[in-house]
Amino acid sequence: MLDVLQQLSETLEARKGAAADDSYVASLYAKGLDKILEKVGEEAFETVLAAKNASTDAAQKDKLVYETADLWFHSLVMLAALDLKPDDVLNELARRFGLSGLDEKAARDPQ
Amino acid sequence: MLDVLQQLSETLEARKGAAADDSYVASLYAKGLDKILEKVGEEAFETVLAAKNASTDAAQKDKLVYETADLWFHSLVMLAALDLKPDDVLNELARRFGLSGLDEKAARDPQ
Amino acid sequence: MLDVLQQLSETLEARKGAAADDSYVASLYAKGLDKILEKVGEEAFETVLAAKNASTDAAQKDKLVYETADLWFHSLVMLAALDLKPDDVLNELARRFGLSGLDEKAARDPQ
Amino acid sequence: MLDVLQQLSETLEARKGAAADDSYVASLYAKGLDKILEKVGEEAFETVLAAKNASTDAAQKDKLVYETADLWFHSLVMLAALDLKPDDVLNELARRFGLSGLDEKAARDPQ
Repeated sequence: MLDVLQQLSETLEARKGAAADDSYVASLYAKGLDKILEKVGEEAFETVLAAKNASTDAAQKDKLVYETADLWFHSLVMLAALDLKPDDVLNELARRFGLSGLDEKAARDPQ
Repeated sequence: MLDVLQQLSETLEARKGAAADDSYVASLYAKGLDKILEKVGEEAFETVLAAKNASTDAAQKDKLVYETADLWFHSLVMLAALDLKPDDVLNELARRFGLSGLDEKAARDPQ
Repeated sequence: MLDVLQQLSETLEARKGAAADDSYVASLYAKGLDKILEKVGEEAFETVLAAKNASTDAAQKDKLVYETADLWFHSLVMLAALDLKPDDVLNELARRFGLSGLDEKAARDPQ
Repeated sequence: MLDVLQQLSETLEARKGAAADDSYVASLYAKGLDKILEKVGEEAFETVLAAKNASTDAAQKDKLVYETADLWFHSLVMLAALDLKPDDVLNELARRFGLSGLDEKAARDPQ
C-alpha cells in the first residue's frame, strides 16, 4: 500500500496538462479552486454521515471507506492545485508524532 | 514517507487501551464518535479556508499543510474508532485508479 | 419580510403529501434525511466560500445572499423532515438574546 | 416570533462598536471573518449530527433546535460582518417561492 498517495499525486500532476474533457481531474482543475473546495466540503459531510450510519450498521462500513477515499482524493486534488504534495502533509504528521517519515523523506531526497 | 499512515494507524490502535487523560487521542475516543466527527468537520472547514487564503498568499501554504494534516489525522481517528484502517481507504483509491497498491497489499498479507 | 420563514414552513409542510416528481422539496423528502443533510452541508461550504469571495470583492455579495438563502432553505427542509418548525429555532434565539419573540409566541399559542 | 431575526440583526449591528471583551459577538468580529466562518462550519456539522441523532431518538430534538439556532446565529454574524442583513436573505427566499415578503419589503422601504 506504500506508494498509493505518491502514485496518485503523480497522476494528479500529470493531469494538469490534460484537456478538461479528458478526465474528471482535469475538469476539476478547469473549474477552479472553489469547485475543488466545494467537493472537499461535500465529501467531508458525506464521510461524517457515512460514519454515523456505520456506527449502528456494520454493513455501512464499505460506504464509509468509499466516502473517506473521496475525501482524501479531493484533498489531494486541492493540494495539487496549489502545488503542494501529499508528502508535505505526511511530513507534518510524522513531525508531530515523532514518526520516521522525515528520515525516509531525507533519505529519498538527497542533494 | 512511505509508512507514516501505517505507523500512525498503529499508534491510534495502541491508544484505544489508554486512559483518557493520558493522550489527546484517548480523550477523543472517550468522548465518543460524535465528538470525533465534529473534529473532522471542523478541520474540513479550516482546510478549505486555509486553501482560499493560500491561493492568494503563498505564505499561507504552511497553514494549509497544517490544516490538511489535522483533517487527515482526525479522519484516521474516525476510521480507528470504527475498526477500519487507512489501508482500507488506500486500497479503495488504488482500485479506482488502477494503482499497484492492491498487489502490494496482497503481497504483504499472505497466510 | 415578517412572515417569510413562516410561509415557507407552511409550503414545506404542504409538500409532504406531494409526489416526488412534482417538486424539488418532495423529491428531497423522498430521498430521505441523509440527502437533505448532505444538501445542508454542501450549502454551508458554498456559503463559506462565497463569504470569503465577498470579503475581497463586493460584487460577490449577491452570490453570498443566494448561498445563505440555500443554506437556510435546506435547514428548513431538515426541520420539516423531523417535524420541527422555524418558530422552534426562533424561540430559542429569542430566549438566548432576551428578545420579544417568546411573548409573541405565547400570545399566539394559548392553551 | 415575527421580528426575531430583525431584532437580532439590530443587536449584531450595535455590537460592532463594542469592545471585544464585552460580548461574544464583539469578540468574534475582533477575531475576523475566518473565525466567524469556522464557527458557521462547525455549527453546520453539529446541526447535521444532531439531526441524525434526532432521527432515531426524539429526545434529541431539543438539541437539534439548539444547534440550528447556533447555525442561524453565526450565519447572521457572518452577514453582519459583511454589511448584509437577514432581510436580504429573506427577500431572496420570498422571490424564489413567490411569497409576499418582497411586497412587504417594498412597503416598508418607501422613499
